[in-house]
Amino acid sequence: MNIQLALDRMTIDEAIKMAKQVEQYIDWIEVGTSLIKEYGMESVKSLKAAFPDKTIVADIKTMDNAKYEFKLCFEAGADVATVMGVAPDATIQTCMETAADYGKHVMIDLLNTTEKRAETLSETYDAILCVHVSKDQQEIEGQSTTSIRIPGNLHPESLIAAAGGITSKTLSELVTLKPHVVIVGSAITKTAHSVESAKQMKEIIKG
Amino acid sequence: MNIQLALDRMTIDEAIKMAKQVEQYIDWIEVGTSLIKEYGMESVKSLKAAFPDKTIVADIKTMDNAKYEFKLCFEAGADVATVMGVAPDATIQTCMETAADYGKHVMIDLLNTTEKRAETLSETYDAILCVHVSKDQQEIEGQSTTSIRIPGNLHPESLIAAAGGITSKTLSELVTLKPHVVIVGSAITKTAHSVESAKQMKEIIKG
Repeated sequence: MNIQLALDRMTIDEAIKMAKQVEQYIDWIEVGTSLIKEYGMESVKSLKAAFPDKTIVADIKTMDNAKYEFKLCFEAGADVATVMGVAPDATIQTCMETAADYGKHVMIDLLNTTEKRAETLSETYDAILCVHVSKDQQEIEGQSTTSIRIPGNLHPESLIAAAGGITSKTLSELVTLKPHVVIVGSAITKTAHSVESAKQMKEIIKG
Repeated sequence: MNIQLALDRMTIDEAIKMAKQVEQYIDWIEVGTSLIKEYGMESVKSLKAAFPDKTIVADIKTMDNAKYEFKLCFEAGADVATVMGVAPDATIQTCMETAADYGKHVMIDLLNTTEKRAETLSETYDAILCVHVSKDQQEIEGQSTTSIRIPGNLHPESLIAAAGGITSKTLSELVTLKPHVVIVGSAITKTAHSVESAKQMKEIIKG
């Protein structure tokens, strides 16, 4: 099980500083969508340069122009890039092919997909599937990790990532579902106790 | 009827140079998703600085983190920003509120929405609705503007934008549907005859 640190709503320098602090407790580093849209591919390049041995996830949330966007990410140093499960099939298929060309990986974000669509995606693609309660669903609709549910109809061999306001409290329950990746943002990055929080989460995951 | 020039898959300097060439024949300038993801908000700032009197559309394709992303766009000088129709309702609602706070506008991209969803969006939000055949659907699935259909079930007062491989040939038919905006990219930006092409399209629209 891997902890993916999601870096969002901060500058590139702040992101590097944050990740450095908790480096030993995290496995994957996510260059958040907000960093990409605010600073472009410079964000991915800078994080990969600062952490060459970590798995770097570019949360580019591709909806179209798949080959171009995925090439951008992989050329900038990303190891994994994200595509939306609600995107057209041609887009997701092209993301898979582009990742294969680079020997890299795809994460399909299941945000706002139907259960049927999620099932089909899990049966069709050899990708990491991200079960996702979005920031807006958390902050505006008041949903939380207690809403994170790994649908029972996904292909049993699918690798699962879980995201959405995960805290050390909710992590304990989540680990029993054995996701491949747990994505943690604010609970590490927006607290005064980032290091303690990351350490505690690493211990929960180690069991 | 407005022509929106979509600038994609080029540098910021190339985008400015291209738009300068055809400035007199176009009405709105779209900072394409690829420019935003490659160069960040610098792309929106630069285009607004170069064309202060044009309507600047930031095609940020928001799926989450609506307030943050829309504030980025409007602070950078955008007049319109885009959100995906397949995004959660909380996200679209927040885009509407953020745009209202800035006195700016929202374009909802109907890519891969169902007809029912498109109808609901048109009845719920006072936004521009973008009927959209995506790049990947065109280039990989072989769909073209002949596939652009303005669904009959949209609210009759909705402002419509149409996008997806529009050429001067397909534009003639499209104008009979009276969209508020026709979005043109490659037919102007990826030809040796950009100025002639833009001029011809302007003439078609003028009738």
